[in-house]
Amino acid sequence: MNAPLTAIEQIQHELPDIDWITDVNRVTRLSQDFSWFSPVLKRDLAGKRADAVAKPRSEDEIKRLVSACARRKVPITVRGGGTGNYGQAVPLHGGVLLDMSGYNAFLWARPGVGRAQAGIKLAEFDREARPSGWELRCIPSTFKSATLGGLFGGGFGGAGSITYGPLAAPGNVLGVRAMTIEAEPQVIELRGAEAMHMHHLWGTNGLVLEIEVGLAPTLPWMENVVVFDDFDQALAFGDAVAHATGIMKKEICFLADPIPGYMHTLADHLPPGCHAILLLIAEYCEDAMLHLASQYGGTVTYRKTAEEAAASGRTLIEYGWNHTTLHALKIDKGLTYLQSSFTPGEHLEQVSRMEKLFKGEVLMHAEFLRNGAGLTTCTALQLVRYTTEERLREIIDSSGAIKSSTLYAYDGSGNLSSIKINTSDSLQDFTETIVHSYQTNAQGKPEKLWRIINGTDSTGYRFSGDDKGNVIDEILYRRGLPSDSVFYYYDDKNRLSDIVRYNKKARQLLPSIMFEYDDTDRVIQKMTILSTNNPDYLIWRYLFNEKGLKTKEALFNKQKELTGRIEYAYTFEN
Amino acid sequence: MNAPLTAIEQIQHELPDIDWITDVNRVTRLSQDFSWFSPVLKRDLAGKRADAVAKPRSEDEIKRLVSACARRKVPITVRGGGTGNYGQAVPLHGGVLLDMSGYNAFLWARPGVGRAQAGIKLAEFDREARPSGWELRCIPSTFKSATLGGLFGGGFGGAGSITYGPLAAPGNVLGVRAMTIEAEPQVIELRGAEAMHMHHLWGTNGLVLEIEVGLAPTLPWMENVVVFDDFDQALAFGDAVAHATGIMKKEICFLADPIPGYMHTLADHLPPGCHAILLLIAEYCEDAMLHLASQYGGTVTYRKTAEEAAASGRTLIEYGWNHTTLHALKIDKGLTYLQSSFTPGEHLEQVSRMEKLFKGEVLMHAEFLRNGAGLTTCTALQLVRYTTEERLREIIDSSGAIKSSTLYAYDGSGNLSSIKINTSDSLQDFTETIVHSYQTNAQGKPEKLWRIINGTDSTGYRFSGDDKGNVIDEILYRRGLPSDSVFYYYDDKNRLSDIVRYNKKARQLLPSIMFEYDDTDRVIQKMTILSTNNPDYLIWRYLFNEKGLKTKEALFNKQKELTGRIEYAYTFEN
Ligand SMILES: Cc1cc2nc3c(=O)[nH]c(=O)nc-3n(C[C@H](O)[C@H](O)[C@H](O)COP(=O)(O)OP(=O)(O)OC[C@H]3O[C@@H](n4cnc5c(N)ncnc54)[C@H](O)[C@@H]3O)c2cc1C
Ligand SMILES: Cc1cc2nc3c(=O)[nH]c(=O)nc-3n(C[C@H](O)[C@H](O)[C@H](O)COP(=O)(O)OP(=O)(O)OC[C@H]3O[C@@H](n4cnc5c(N)ncnc54)[C@H](O)[C@@H]3O)c2cc1C
Repeated sequence: MNAPLTAIEQIQHELPDIDWITDVNRVTRLSQDFSWFSPVLKRDLAGKRADAVAKPRSEDEIKRLVSACARRKVPITVRGGGTGNYGQAVPLHGGVLLDMSGYNAFLWARPGVGRAQAGIKLAEFDREARPSGWELRCIPSTFKSATLGGLFGGGFGGAGSITYGPLAAPGNVLGVRAMTIEAEPQVIELRGAEAMHMHHLWGTNGLVLEIEVGLAPTLPWMENVVVFDDFDQALAFGDAVAHATGIMKKEICFLADPIPGYMHTLADHLPPGCHAILLLIAEYCEDAMLHLASQYGGTVTYRKTAEEAAASGRTLIEYGWNHTTLHALKIDKGLTYLQSSFTPGEHLEQVSRMEKLFKGEVLMHAEFLRNGAGLTTCTALQLVRYTTEERLREIIDSSGAIKSSTLYAYDGSGNLSSIKINTSDSLQDFTETIVHSYQTNAQGKPEKLWRIINGTDSTGYRFSGDDKGNVIDEILYRRGLPSDSVFYYYDDKNRLSDIVRYNKKARQLLPSIMFEYDDTDRVIQKMTILSTNNPDYLIWRYLFNEKGLKTKEALFNKQKELTGRIEYAYTFEN
Repeated sequence: MNAPLTAIEQIQHELPDIDWITDVNRVTRLSQDFSWFSPVLKRDLAGKRADAVAKPRSEDEIKRLVSACARRKVPITVRGGGTGNYGQAVPLHGGVLLDMSGYNAFLWARPGVGRAQAGIKLAEFDREARPSGWELRCIPSTFKSATLGGLFGGGFGGAGSITYGPLAAPGNVLGVRAMTIEAEPQVIELRGAEAMHMHHLWGTNGLVLEIEVGLAPTLPWMENVVVFDDFDQALAFGDAVAHATGIMKKEICFLADPIPGYMHTLADHLPPGCHAILLLIAEYCEDAMLHLASQYGGTVTYRKTAEEAAASGRTLIEYGWNHTTLHALKIDKGLTYLQSSFTPGEHLEQVSRMEKLFKGEVLMHAEFLRNGAGLTTCTALQLVRYTTEERLREIIDSSGAIKSSTLYAYDGSGNLSSIKINTSDSLQDFTETIVHSYQTNAQGKPEKLWRIINGTDSTGYRFSGDDKGNVIDEILYRRGLPSDSVFYYYDDKNRLSDIVRYNKKARQLLPSIMFEYDDTDRVIQKMTILSTNNPDYLIWRYLFNEKGLKTKEALFNKQKELTGRIEYAYTFEN
């Protein structure tokens, strides 16, 4: 007599034609990605594995698989090339690992646009598109093994982002064909900005079948290493190339001493103690680049024409981005890495200050790019000599991240009387104290609010209430002059749902903050519209502990990038 | 008996094979350019004309002509298409007008680079280059009649500068073949940055024969007009497209109401009272652009695919840049125009404030571009309802230009004891007072200097003297801490020639300011090196009146652009 079938076995039984992998070693290997770069994730994700791996080859196979899993509530974890660094492709709760790499046809390329199935490797996409003169606009340094679906679901950008920005910049993704995860999976085409609702969400809100992306003209990319004695000069040279509109480029990577020492396969071109810039620029821009190199005191130690680079099968792209970390980890297992972003325009100074702050412990590696707002800046993927998790957190907290403390004061009837927020920034020498001081009415709703910044710049708000005692109208007074009016809306459960501003210029009411609640009336999401002129928004998500106290806040921008994170620790005073 | 020949007649006699134009009407017409846009230049340049026009067809003809003129000290004025706006091609002192338009061969185009003789029309260059997939990176709106030599000698950029910056950005010009103006003219090839020594100098330091420029991939440029009810929304949409790295573009022109009303040939697409954005973007970026347009409340009223635009023979480029002015002048002769540049990042606010400052008198027209430093911003070419020259100056002075007053105080022995500089900026609400307070030694040379900004932030400098009593060493104290050392060098006439800083990081002495003097020991030029990390420099040129008092200061950046101008008026107090 047979033992009753597990859910997974039932699915395999139902879909025998699908390519199934059940061999424990292979399933274990496919359940991993590159999250081992992080000692913290390595520990937290140890032992997580799928029950089986399915590798479908057609939309129909995918659909039947998704349906079978959905009907049985079996978790699906989507995997492209499995090169993600944050454990996005690691199955947390077993189930089926859906390996997309067999669903990989290149569909078509037209001038400026191309489309392929999600499982195609990025290098393969480029091989198909290049003969017509076009290539992908931005690729991670893992382009040889990463997939288009993985880049869209879990990636950011990479080589090419210095010109075309991140994948999320408007115009880079034109559309996706997506499948919902339910018993009767639906297939829909999302175009433009709508498609971006699935970007960088790790396959958690659906499966991406096909992606249509904007392409860039293929230029003859020559490769150069330029070395410097001086940290700041190397950095400034990278920045000058980044800002030179007449130099067409695909990659500008800054590796500060001692990182070049870890790049063993480039050792001949990296003299001891040097700070290096790795470059991909169009061949015909070489003279302009050389002129800048000489101005900043740089020496070219490596030079390959586009043809030579292609023939060698080696590219400097595979030394930049997180490949820098990979090369270094091969030499020194005691390393890990961190990522930092900087304020465009202040980025050189911030990088330079951060270098001094942690000299010897945090090793500077920066990549120049145009950010989501189109501004030229750099982002860092520093190597860190890892000791303990506590020290890693300490570095994160003091590395220019903003530290913020909030003091809530309540009056005798338990109403909030004032909030004092103190914010300081170790990198920018910035300290700000904001006091919100409330005057409440009989129902405990605020009647008047004073906002005082750094003890001087104060703004007064007056509230008027609705019949439930809720504030519905606020008039802003600034230095005595009335300005915009603000209105408050409440949902049927009497919870504040929208804060709306009357905009004089647009002569209309415009929402500025929107709240969402969970069943226990806790705000779990806050969406802030930046301004009338800027339709961008920010989303705050909140987590609470069992006592109902907020434990985590995460801030996402419109491009779904995590741009801020706050963790709360509570100490109670009498 | 013949009258003795004039110098011009001798040259014509010596070079009979050259194509000469002597007909008075034709010479008069060719002696003009588009400086009549300015009522001031129109008056000042009235009646200026050449004695004869020569139109050489070969380098040899040009060489013999230049030699003949140089030997007889006959002035040469070089002319390309004669579309310049500042009278650069108007002969101020008669002589020969050298019309380059006959020297116009397209030489070659390779991927990313092309070369032609200076007299080629820009449209003709593009016609030759485009079949190989390449085109000029930036063109003025006069591309149909302007020449490559004229763009290099007297132009800035135009359509395309939103991506590739101005012509002066490193990498855009690869080399020029130039001829010196002397009895034995020399022909030399200047490459890269060296070539730029002849850029934007209006042919005053030599003749340009051939120009080699970086090219851009030809993309299918579609043309759109997007209209808005609101000034700021239209401006913000233009800025959003400018910053969208995934939208490839060639032109973003902002015409605020009432300017669209002057564009009669586009009237069907410009509803009364609208603010319009004229766009050239790559066809495959249309969806992303439309999404932004809807976010900012814009309506597309005109749409031509690249093919349709080419077939129509009409392009929106010929409504932007100074073509806006040209169209408006056709309707209203009472107009002229001004140009303004803005601080990248603050440009939207500055444009918006300037609009309010002169509403009805100065009509806003802005062009988005990446500036010489690679930053995305806009530049304005506002239409002005002209009344008097005084009012025009008033507008210039109060339109955000910086106003500065300086008070010099002398002690009993006639030594400078303090300088008080008050700077205010009508657009940025910026006021700064800097006091330089000196303590002098027996020889009247300063011993100590205090620099106090806005009465609070003070820095002390100490000087030590050489044997002539000159200061040679200055140590900077800032908030009590000694910082860089500064050294002063004097020339053999005992005039301060260089201020040199010891840079700790570079561990070397680096010049930071250099002075040049005239025969009467007056500083006529000051060159400032911006910083160690930035090898850019600024050049100040000075003019004096008969009393030896400074009357004018002009500031040029490395790109030879006039970036500031100060005129001095003196009132004497007892
Ligand atoms: C050495 C190294 C260098 C790197 N360099 C870069 C870099 O330069 N830039 C950069 O952005 N990243 C970089 N990364 C991270 C990663 O390589 C890229 O983001 C890559 O694009 C991920 O693709 P993948 O196919 O390997 O995705 P996976 O790791 O397989 O998946 C990533 C995420 O996308 C989801 N996903 C995959 N396919 C689909 C689909 N079809 N539908 C829905 N969801 C899907 C997965 O569930 C997962 O959450 C680097 C990583 C390493 C190890
Ligand atoms: C309606 C209108 C719109 C315009 N739009 C723009 C614009 O978008 N962007 C812009 O930058 N400008 C613009 N301009 C100005 C002008 O059209 C351009 O700068 C154009 O490139 C000048 O070329 P040209 O051949 O007409 O030069 P010309 O006017 O003939 O000459 C310009 C200067 O260059 C010198 N010169 C010409 N040829 C040579 C040579 N071979 N060697 C040395 N010196 C030489 C001349 O002596 C003169 O000083 C505009 C002007 C008008 C009237």
